[in-house]
Amino acid sequence: MAGGPARFLPILAWARTYDRATFASDLVAAVIVTVMLIPQSLAYAMLAGLPPEVGLYASILPLVAYAPFGSSRTLAVGPVAVVSLMTAAAVGEIAARGTADYLAAAILLAFLSGAMLVLMGLFRLGFLADFLSHPVISGFITASGILIAASQLHHLLGVPAGGDTLPGIVAALAADAAGTNPITLAIGLGVLAFLHVARSRLKPLLIGLGLANRPADIATRAAPILAVAVTILLANRLDLGAQGVALVGAIPRGLPAPALPHVSLDMLSALAVPAFLISLVGFVESVSVARTLAAKRRQRIAPDQELIGLGFANIAAGLSSGYPVTGGFARSVVNFDAGAETPAAGAFTALGIALAALFLTPLLADLPRATLAATIIVAVLSLVDLRAIRRVLAYSKTDFAAMAATILVTLLWGVEPGVVAGVGLSLFLHLYRTSRPHVAVVGRVPGTEHFRNVARHAVITEPHILSIRVDESLYFANSRYLEDRIAALVAERPDIRHVILMCPAVNEIDASALDSLEEINRRLAEAGIALHLSEVKGPVMDRLRRTDFLTRLTGQTFLSQHAAVTTLCAATGGPAFTSTGALK
Amino acid sequence: MAGGPARFLPILAWARTYDRATFASDLVAAVIVTVMLIPQSLAYAMLAGLPPEVGLYASILPLVAYAPFGSSRTLAVGPVAVVSLMTAAAVGEIAARGTADYLAAAILLAFLSGAMLVLMGLFRLGFLADFLSHPVISGFITASGILIAASQLHHLLGVPAGGDTLPGIVAALAADAAGTNPITLAIGLGVLAFLHVARSRLKPLLIGLGLANRPADIATRAAPILAVAVTILLANRLDLGAQGVALVGAIPRGLPAPALPHVSLDMLSALAVPAFLISLVGFVESVSVARTLAAKRRQRIAPDQELIGLGFANIAAGLSSGYPVTGGFARSVVNFDAGAETPAAGAFTALGIALAALFLTPLLADLPRATLAATIIVAVLSLVDLRAIRRVLAYSKTDFAAMAATILVTLLWGVEPGVVAGVGLSLFLHLYRTSRPHVAVVGRVPGTEHFRNVARHAVITEPHILSIRVDESLYFANSRYLEDRIAALVAERPDIRHVILMCPAVNEIDASALDSLEEINRRLAEAGIALHLSEVKGPVMDRLRRTDFLTRLTGQTFLSQHAAVTTLCAATGGPAFTSTGALK
Repeated sequence: MAGGPARFLPILAWARTYDRATFASDLVAAVIVTVMLIPQSLAYAMLAGLPPEVGLYASILPLVAYAPFGSSRTLAVGPVAVVSLMTAAAVGEIAARGTADYLAAAILLAFLSGAMLVLMGLFRLGFLADFLSHPVISGFITASGILIAASQLHHLLGVPAGGDTLPGIVAALAADAAGTNPITLAIGLGVLAFLHVARSRLKPLLIGLGLANRPADIATRAAPILAVAVTILLANRLDLGAQGVALVGAIPRGLPAPALPHVSLDMLSALAVPAFLISLVGFVESVSVARTLAAKRRQRIAPDQELIGLGFANIAAGLSSGYPVTGGFARSVVNFDAGAETPAAGAFTALGIALAALFLTPLLADLPRATLAATIIVAVLSLVDLRAIRRVLAYSKTDFAAMAATILVTLLWGVEPGVVAGVGLSLFLHLYRTSRPHVAVVGRVPGTEHFRNVARHAVITEPHILSIRVDESLYFANSRYLEDRIAALVAERPDIRHVILMCPAVNEIDASALDSLEEINRRLAEAGIALHLSEVKGPVMDRLRRTDFLTRLTGQTFLSQHAAVTTLCAATGGPAFTSTGALK
Repeated sequence: MAGGPARFLPILAWARTYDRATFASDLVAAVIVTVMLIPQSLAYAMLAGLPPEVGLYASILPLVAYAPFGSSRTLAVGPVAVVSLMTAAAVGEIAARGTADYLAAAILLAFLSGAMLVLMGLFRLGFLADFLSHPVISGFITASGILIAASQLHHLLGVPAGGDTLPGIVAALAADAAGTNPITLAIGLGVLAFLHVARSRLKPLLIGLGLANRPADIATRAAPILAVAVTILLANRLDLGAQGVALVGAIPRGLPAPALPHVSLDMLSALAVPAFLISLVGFVESVSVARTLAAKRRQRIAPDQELIGLGFANIAAGLSSGYPVTGGFARSVVNFDAGAETPAAGAFTALGIALAALFLTPLLADLPRATLAATIIVAVLSLVDLRAIRRVLAYSKTDFAAMAATILVTLLWGVEPGVVAGVGLSLFLHLYRTSRPHVAVVGRVPGTEHFRNVARHAVITEPHILSIRVDESLYFANSRYLEDRIAALVAERPDIRHVILMCPAVNEIDASALDSLEEINRRLAEAGIALHLSEVKGPVMDRLRRTDFLTRLTGQTFLSQHAAVTTLCAATGGPAFTSTGALK
């Protein structure tokens, strides 16, 4: 990553060395991604409840807008499954599917999300994405995958859609299943089976036929376009539309006319929160793809710069009748594997999609919707990661609780409540954990200067001295707990004259914790006990020196716990180290 | 604090030893608190926008209900200033002052808040109060004090009320000031001056007259009742009501009829959030008073039991036409100083107030409202703590930011947004701080086994080994940051073959951070660098052993940093400690 202006406009870094070889690599990648993106764009627009051409529009200007600003060299931007689902949920709240208002709201949502992303980038708020923990993200993606797959089943059956949550979708399907169109079902299941076999068998087959690993992989990714072509042909020749098979229908030919989104204050306030959540989720998804790919080529990506790149992509979507976009995983991997070297590949892909919008749309009218639904189902089921769930369960109950809550809330109440519940619970559980820190009574390991937990090691303690180690920064959520714990520990030990608070793990003492230390000091003083501190970190001590707490402290501060115990033993005059702790 | 059933019903602990001497002490305290509570009850009901008798009702049954359940021996429960202001804000949102709906909503609010408190107690959620940091509480109380004092000024001028926020109140006063009633103003200023002088001069005077410190203090606290008596007499004899002085007016004589609060679903949902905030603030205020007093007599209070005690007090308020109550600071101090020994003193106080409701109410009709307003102003100005603001500013910019935001939002937007903003900002700033942990490169202090920051100390480092100490638990909000920091540190040092992550301050590694460690390990491995861990705490290591991370770890884990460096120097074959870090 370069410094200077290239830091804010990464195109300045890569355009200088752009040559014919790079151009050739980018062009090949662009052709392959275009072939993959055409069915995806149509399918995800259908998932978002939008006309198919909106998916194509979202794959043109946004890709061009990302190219100069994005810090990732190989990220492929466009409509993605999870963001399409979130768009449907957000826009469905304020307008009915198929209406002009629905479309206008989706376009405004892209624009709003783009503006938020650019602002977040300018204010360097990329760190906000860190507040989504991995288990929450993984749970959310898994649940979204299930929800998306379920939402597409009605296309396979050829019955009306219903429900935004898993119970709602299942109930609607159960009610309408009697009206299943057998031809639609046959097409849907056929495409599903074909795509499934292509995923698992085609690549080994192609390698067996002498293709190298990477081209075999790329050819496998082109399976959906084959399914699209074949089912269009079938529908057209057998006139399946007349037999009740739902087809995509006429798609307006041409490019989107640039236009400012239609803005109303009501819509803005209704879309603000969804736009923020979509921005956050899209950003997290995109950055994690970009990081993975960048690491493979020893490149770095700049999260705040990615915010700006994705922001301009979404603003472009909002100005060209598109809907929210972000970096897609499968697509970026194909772009990377096909040899893309710079974001120019994205601009060439945009050109490819534009040509498709100009010349291929008449061919797409006969495309069965069941084909698109099957494409979506196969794509999103790879998002469902049950191994991750098991791994988190084995490692941490807290993380698993956050993950399980995210999954359940997403399935039962929808995507927005799911994200909010996951983030909220992650933060709450983290705070709860640090609000009950580990507090250990410590003693000296014989023959060393090390001090360890009396409950875990055979250590030496002194009857007049209580050494307590707190394994957490002291801040408002745990300061009261510390007061109570020290009071309880002292109450059990009537002989204590000195309490040493050992602070090697205390990275911070905030104003509330300082109040609590004052209180502990005061209460111990009333009981005739001196409070000492040991191993306080430099920055923490610097700040304590700015207050008058140290002048009120009844005891001393020591650089090491060993120095503290040695000094206090000498001072109390008693024999040092008279009692030994038991090994438990 | 006793165990067994007495833990849940503290009355079982103190009733057994209740004797004539305790009874006498409690009775004396109760008489003094009753005298103090009569004007306060009327005044705070007026502040809450409620008829004066509601204040009296809230000082009868709730006190009796608290007595058997509360864990504090000396807390005096009843209407308090901040909760009265919050009640006015909450109820004012859904009904107009003076209407039956307004009163019904206030009663329901008490009941709802009581139910929440009891539930929080049963689920042991007392720790939730710890999430309010001291600077936020102190800022909120200060701002509430200013807001309450400002809201009473119109009573001193004898003009109509207006505004819920400081700008609103000031604007309304400015608009109406021309209509000031001079007699009302004279009474108000007279009472203000009297109470002010009583606060600052009466106690020294009484001590000069030979009274002991404590009785002098208690007598001083009775000044408001004197002001009430004198101004009633004035109003009555000079017929001030006819001259435009606002009087309290006829108060229904008698005790409240027990009744279930009127519940509607609309009201419940409108009051749920305010009830929660009132419960939280009331609980925090009450517990901090109770703790302070308990510490003076070497007693302990149980926060979860306090929730239950306050909960039943508020349920009792809801069943007897009262409004939300909690433990009051001034009142509890008087109760304590007057010698109360058990919560029975509270029950006796309730009896006193009941007698007042039965027999004194006819006398109160002529009480000028300006007298009550002056009482409130003098009481709440002691809540304004400017020294605390200065102290926090000097100690911590982060804490000050949370405090300043709480004060500003409370003054400009009201009490509920103020609490929410303060809590939100405290949590956010804490998370932001821990999301950018201190990461130090460390080296060995010559002649010791200690390792210190190379930027702060003259230490010895080894060219092939990079030792990094992270001063924070590793969790989702900082795990990405750690990846980036280590990548940057390694990128600057091409000779590095080993990275040792020194973890004495790492109290936890959550699932997200484990993913990051895996990623760091993988990326370092690709660059031919081994990752080692040192000084990992017992509980953290226990959990890591449950995963297969340690089998994938390219390096080793060491009990001490010294052992790590010694082992790796011997293994790499190079001379140990060849380069010295500079003292900076």
